[in-house]
Amino acid sequence: MSHSKYEYVRQYESDDKLLPNCWIVIRIDGKAFHKFSDVHQFQKPNDKPALDLMNRCAERVLDQFRDVLLAYGQSDEYSFVFRKDTVLYNRRASKLMTNIVSQFGSSYVFYWKDFFPEKQLKFPPVFDARAVLYPTNLTLRDYLSWRQVDCHINNLYNTTFWNLVLKGGLTNQQAQEKLKGTFAADKNEILFSQFGINYNNERDQFKKGTTIYRERVEVPMENGQIKIRSKITATHCDIIGDGFWEDHTYLLDPYKDA
Amino acid sequence: MSHSKYEYVRQYESDDKLLPNCWIVIRIDGKAFHKFSDVHQFQKPNDKPALDLMNRCAERVLDQFRDVLLAYGQSDEYSFVFRKDTVLYNRRASKLMTNIVSQFGSSYVFYWKDFFPEKQLKFPPVFDARAVLYPTNLTLRDYLSWRQVDCHINNLYNTTFWNLVLKGGLTNQQAQEKLKGTFAADKNEILFSQFGINYNNERDQFKKGTTIYRERVEVPMENGQIKIRSKITATHCDIIGDGFWEDHTYLLDPYKDA
Amino acid sequence: MSHSKYEYVRQYESDDKLLPNCWIVIRIDGKAFHKFSDVHQFQKPNDKPALDLMNRCAERVLDQFRDVLLAYGQSDEYSFVFRKDTVLYNRRASKLMTNIVSQFGSSYVFYWKDFFPEKQLKFPPVFDARAVLYPTNLTLRDYLSWRQVDCHINNLYNTTFWNLVLKGGLTNQQAQEKLKGTFAADKNEILFSQFGINYNNERDQFKKGTTIYRERVEVPMENGQIKIRSKITATHCDIIGDGFWEDHTYLLDPYKDA
Amino acid sequence: MSHSKYEYVRQYESDDKLLPNCWIVIRIDGKAFHKFSDVHQFQKPNDKPALDLMNRCAERVLDQFRDVLLAYGQSDEYSFVFRKDTVLYNRRASKLMTNIVSQFGSSYVFYWKDFFPEKQLKFPPVFDARAVLYPTNLTLRDYLSWRQVDCHINNLYNTTFWNLVLKGGLTNQQAQEKLKGTFAADKNEILFSQFGINYNNERDQFKKGTTIYRERVEVPMENGQIKIRSKITATHCDIIGDGFWEDHTYLLDPYKDA
Repeated sequence: MSHSKYEYVRQYESDDKLLPNCWIVIRIDGKAFHKFSDVHQFQKPNDKPALDLMNRCAERVLDQFRDVLLAYGQSDEYSFVFRKDTVLYNRRASKLMTNIVSQFGSSYVFYWKDFFPEKQLKFPPVFDARAVLYPTNLTLRDYLSWRQVDCHINNLYNTTFWNLVLKGGLTNQQAQEKLKGTFAADKNEILFSQFGINYNNERDQFKKGTTIYRERVEVPMENGQIKIRSKITATHCDIIGDGFWEDHTYLLDPYKDA
Repeated sequence: MSHSKYEYVRQYESDDKLLPNCWIVIRIDGKAFHKFSDVHQFQKPNDKPALDLMNRCAERVLDQFRDVLLAYGQSDEYSFVFRKDTVLYNRRASKLMTNIVSQFGSSYVFYWKDFFPEKQLKFPPVFDARAVLYPTNLTLRDYLSWRQVDCHINNLYNTTFWNLVLKGGLTNQQAQEKLKGTFAADKNEILFSQFGINYNNERDQFKKGTTIYRERVEVPMENGQIKIRSKITATHCDIIGDGFWEDHTYLLDPYKDA
Repeated sequence: MSHSKYEYVRQYESDDKLLPNCWIVIRIDGKAFHKFSDVHQFQKPNDKPALDLMNRCAERVLDQFRDVLLAYGQSDEYSFVFRKDTVLYNRRASKLMTNIVSQFGSSYVFYWKDFFPEKQLKFPPVFDARAVLYPTNLTLRDYLSWRQVDCHINNLYNTTFWNLVLKGGLTNQQAQEKLKGTFAADKNEILFSQFGINYNNERDQFKKGTTIYRERVEVPMENGQIKIRSKITATHCDIIGDGFWEDHTYLLDPYKDA
Repeated sequence: MSHSKYEYVRQYESDDKLLPNCWIVIRIDGKAFHKFSDVHQFQKPNDKPALDLMNRCAERVLDQFRDVLLAYGQSDEYSFVFRKDTVLYNRRASKLMTNIVSQFGSSYVFYWKDFFPEKQLKFPPVFDARAVLYPTNLTLRDYLSWRQVDCHINNLYNTTFWNLVLKGGLTNQQAQEKLKGTFAADKNEILFSQFGINYNNERDQFKKGTTIYRERVEVPMENGQIKIRSKITATHCDIIGDGFWEDHTYLLDPYKDA
């Protein structure tokens, strides 16, 4: 940028450097995606191509931002976890948030046709983003658990709701009334007794969301030795229990209380 | 969002409400647009369709965010000025920044084909954004002047540089050397004597950038009365002097020291 | 400070620079002064020496911090207004707050004996502080008006309450009940009819609080010329209306929308 | 506070809640204590009563703020460490900083006469304060180590400097020149060979500073059982190595990566 007598206005910019040595989570969220889903006639309760497109965009983010260690997505949201020790953009919150959300949003339009070859995108979608810090491995895992529990609860509700409406002939209002105050067991029962659906058999992608991470892969070399490469990998497994983390200790363990 | 024992993690979110009664400027900036321009073979020093596309995206932003009063763009950047008294998103900086940058970036991909019908978009572009507060009309005008002076200085340099390279046969390195330490008058002279170009005759869009604002238009009604409507309008005029502001007093005057 | 391998911890310090070109108000507030007043047997509803001590401390602050233009105090609180363009401590909020509150608090103990020669200070008092920005002259004046209205409302209530208790023989509980839901006129009436007190005749210091400012004084010199000096001056006048400000235009006028 | 049309100005106050689950360190620092020491003729290089007074003030802080776990002081500074999980003042930085600094500063004046019975306090001292977050036990310990290393380096320098001046007859300027570029070993050698001083035999309070913490004490009860009480205790020991922390595991261990 050039110098002029007006340049003093830069002093009005404020610093928003995030505390070092904390996990940085950037969560993006679709703006008015209820309307967006209606206009684009997404299937209820889950539109697989739409979810696959979200995953494609998240992979693009991991591909472009090497310090994103892991991402978790469900519905119209995605959380990106930066390495605890990242110094990307000097940890400036606004830089991190806006780069991620912008990469995600433009990718959504860019890759749309790969997932909806027959469907025209009617208008450009908007996502917002926020940055949150988690100082410990436990709080980071609790954050991710929070999002996956949210996925589970919403998906069970939506699955039951839309079966009541689409197959059961209820109005939206009636379905909402019927589900008011019900517990998970009640919804499972409705699904099974009225629609012959065993919720456990639903797709893991719908029930658990998608976790994308940098997997460590051993690559044999010509000389017989092995080198370690990282590979962007997606899974729909449970990330609340210890299993996933014990299988991938290289993700969080290097950052234990230090 | 659903309730669970993990929900406590929401307490880690921080408040980033911007001071009331200040102009909010959100400036977006293309990330690595040098490379982006090369890959997409943008014309040097200015690619009109590319600049028009930027303007189209900015208009989309004004169309979607009613509290954006005015925007100024040049090169790969755009500044959006929110009404001083906006309460959109409760003035949360992250919400304002990420909504704007995401709307702009996805629009860029969405409208690409309208401006480059023959050219394939190779990859999704990325923009970053920042939020800056200006407490007075004068500081806001100085901010906008700063960006327009920047446009002028860069465009004069780039116009001379690329004429030296494309028509003058110099290498990039040689052109850079030749321009080192030159003043505006020197560059004007090079353009005129070597290439017969009168810089004043260059397009205003290139020399001044683009200002998009909500123009007040009087619409005559059937009953003979007149109603005031606002219309999104683009201009390439000077916004450093008082002229533009005197012609459009309704933009800033209502916000004088209050 | 010396260098060592531990010095990296300084990177955890965050920047808290306040927006330029805004009025900075630091308001300090007595902590648990209800108890402090009881222990030191302050007179109800107003203890003049205690209020005078507060004013003495505020004068010390103005004396030590040249960029404090004006202060307003009442009860156990004091607001200090920094020049809009101060660059003291690079406008870092924590530096400004803690310097002011620390100067005020240690002065309170230091000057105690001048105001309570017969009374032992039982324990060191504590004040907290906050920093607030006001971007315009109007908002600054509204802030000061807010505090002075608060002074008026509380003092009228307290004067009536303590007359009911101390002279009227009511218990605290009974006095509170009697005043519940009353308006200013009701309290004036109680004071007048029951205790023969015309509230208007109460001390201005109690009704209006204290404003301390840098007065401009013309000092005649030997050579016949006049030089302008500033003098720390206290007044108990109204600062809500325009009068005070019209009489001292040099305080705020230089900072009109700029 | 009372309601009025001016109350809107409260919206200009900003939130400064500190990230949960991080150690909060409030460090206070004497303002212009070089001059303060000269005026009050503090002994060089260390004035024991002055340091003892600092410690007394710090104990007052621990006594009044139950969530301060530990404090470390040297020279004219003191660091106060809040429990990682404190919710005092809802973790608002300004409240925490200003309460601590104000308690410390007013205590300094209040307790002055207990440490300087023969010496008049000439003017009220000022301290500033800052708040810093440390997310892990290791970074907190590194912070404290940083301050203790600083104490060591400065004290060795000052001890040598003042012996050269006071006993060696050098001017301040000459002493400074002589010490330029010297290492610890050089200073130890000067002290020993010129002044017969074995630096190791200097007071620990001067060499190590003072650590004040809540010690766990077992109190036997009449019924033969034992109850745990906490007692504010001061020590001048090393806190860089593991010893102190292994002897007092109850201080940090409960807050391991959680």
